[in-house]
Amino acid sequence: MSAAAPRVLALSGGVGGAKLARGLARVLPPMSLTVICNNGDDFEHLGLRICPDLDSVVYALADLADRERGWGRAGESWEFMGALGALGAPTWFALGDRDLALHVWRNERLRRGETLTDITLDLTQRLGVPQRILPMCDTPAPTRLRTDQGELDFQDYFVRQRAQPRVTALHFPNSAGSAPPASTQHRAEQLHDAILLCPSNPYLSIDPILAIPYWCNLLTTARCPVVAVSPIVGGRALKGCAAKMLQEFGHEVSALSIARHYGDLLDGIIIDHQDAALRHVIEALGIECCTAQSVMHDDADRDALARATLHFARQLSLSRSS
Amino acid sequence: MSAAAPRVLALSGGVGGAKLARGLARVLPPMSLTVICNNGDDFEHLGLRICPDLDSVVYALADLADRERGWGRAGESWEFMGALGALGAPTWFALGDRDLALHVWRNERLRRGETLTDITLDLTQRLGVPQRILPMCDTPAPTRLRTDQGELDFQDYFVRQRAQPRVTALHFPNSAGSAPPASTQHRAEQLHDAILLCPSNPYLSIDPILAIPYWCNLLTTARCPVVAVSPIVGGRALKGCAAKMLQEFGHEVSALSIARHYGDLLDGIIIDHQDAALRHVIEALGIECCTAQSVMHDDADRDALARATLHFARQLSLSRSS
Repeated sequence: MSAAAPRVLALSGGVGGAKLARGLARVLPPMSLTVICNNGDDFEHLGLRICPDLDSVVYALADLADRERGWGRAGESWEFMGALGALGAPTWFALGDRDLALHVWRNERLRRGETLTDITLDLTQRLGVPQRILPMCDTPAPTRLRTDQGELDFQDYFVRQRAQPRVTALHFPNSAGSAPPASTQHRAEQLHDAILLCPSNPYLSIDPILAIPYWCNLLTTARCPVVAVSPIVGGRALKGCAAKMLQEFGHEVSALSIARHYGDLLDGIIIDHQDAALRHVIEALGIECCTAQSVMHDDADRDALARATLHFARQLSLSRSS
Repeated sequence: MSAAAPRVLALSGGVGGAKLARGLARVLPPMSLTVICNNGDDFEHLGLRICPDLDSVVYALADLADRERGWGRAGESWEFMGALGALGAPTWFALGDRDLALHVWRNERLRRGETLTDITLDLTQRLGVPQRILPMCDTPAPTRLRTDQGELDFQDYFVRQRAQPRVTALHFPNSAGSAPPASTQHRAEQLHDAILLCPSNPYLSIDPILAIPYWCNLLTTARCPVVAVSPIVGGRALKGCAAKMLQEFGHEVSALSIARHYGDLLDGIIIDHQDAALRHVIEALGIECCTAQSVMHDDADRDALARATLHFARQLSLSRSS
């Protein structure tokens, strides 16, 4: 890993992943960061293609994200939703008035035949985001959940049913046959100094990316360190249903389970200082472990975690080459 | 025309037509009014089917219309449009945040295979409108304009180019093969006491309806009086480009030209008190003429014009049967 301008490929879901992606964007030179976003959550709603994780990363890097809510845009208004409800339309998925502009315009461009990748590149440029934010692939590759309520689409499970059903298995029916477009592959195959798995739900945000053979293969054959940041801190998930799902799958809710989940894909993992006691047992798995302050309340936290992660990846790179 | 509960079929465009439709809705029993709306202005924008005249009538009767602007919803906000512009999307057609709910939800239902007529019936019910508001037909029947700038779609001419191009002819390429659905025909063929042509632009709002053979035939064979309300008052159009188009077609800008335009279709026409001097020349055409206060500033004006129109139609009906 070169000290001057480390090039980083980060795999990310929404909330937590978008926070670290923002930290990375703030501490790295603009052209050094490529974020590959989960699209397993994507769905069509009211005729519009919605890409929740992709949009969370775009808004985070464009400094448009709402930090309280964890999704959507800051200073958002909800007049559309109010009027929609009065018409008897479904309102279980909230679409802010400004956020809607992205969905409507992207949908129109998709309909005209542009790819999600090309549209995302154009929109991020217009929003002043110099980093490369790319969908994991351009064709739909949805996450589906087998639950005690039957098989569910992701948003049905996550938003409409508030992640209440007990999950027994996930599957990614289209992913084996999916691949990122050539332009994304070209970007991903440029020499990278680190590949990072952002602190997102491993089952719902990172696994859908890794279910695409190209991305799994990229990680298993990477010559640079692959480093995860644990989304589990002090025995709980910072946001979302990662803790609940770990339990449903019979695992303890701890950063150790995250390390075990990714297993051989990882060279190292960042866990929170408060989980320092797990360090030796994680290292016994053959995964280097580093503690950091991993709860991100503000940009200073995001920057610090980004720097700690980059520093750790550099250490792994140096020790590997020595 | 029975005194108890006159049944009225009104043909309407947007602004002026919607105002009279509102007056009619206010003075007639709820089930007595059917409004047939022009859909020649409909177009697809950002992937959404937009029905400007239909929506103006729906909003007017639902008491949601903005009265200053003359289109869209009162108390509207424009966050969507602001965000859309920042993404580089076209912003020449304004879509308010609340108005957008109607477009998105209707579009989704059209995509699922529901008809515009059925969707409109459902949405008006949800908005508390007991009157029947119906599109002129369910299939696209656009108005196209031959102009000094070439052939233009209606919204391109009217909104994007602000009705600046000089119009040489209108045509309705799909209308000869279009017809309203059976449910609308059934409603239209119930015994009516009056058929009204609302004070809308005759070329752009009423002619597109009459270009559909069913509607033209309904008027020519009607056994009840057919009465127009002139949109030209004191030598000018109250709104829009009716005056400009009359001039472009070589006609004087007066209620007389409106009477001549509709010609044999009409039994009578309402003109403004200030145009009383035209009464005899209009009557020389074989069209009965009545003057009224036809500029509608508020609901009292709308109610008064609706009552005057109904009274005139009743007089025509009585003189016909005597």
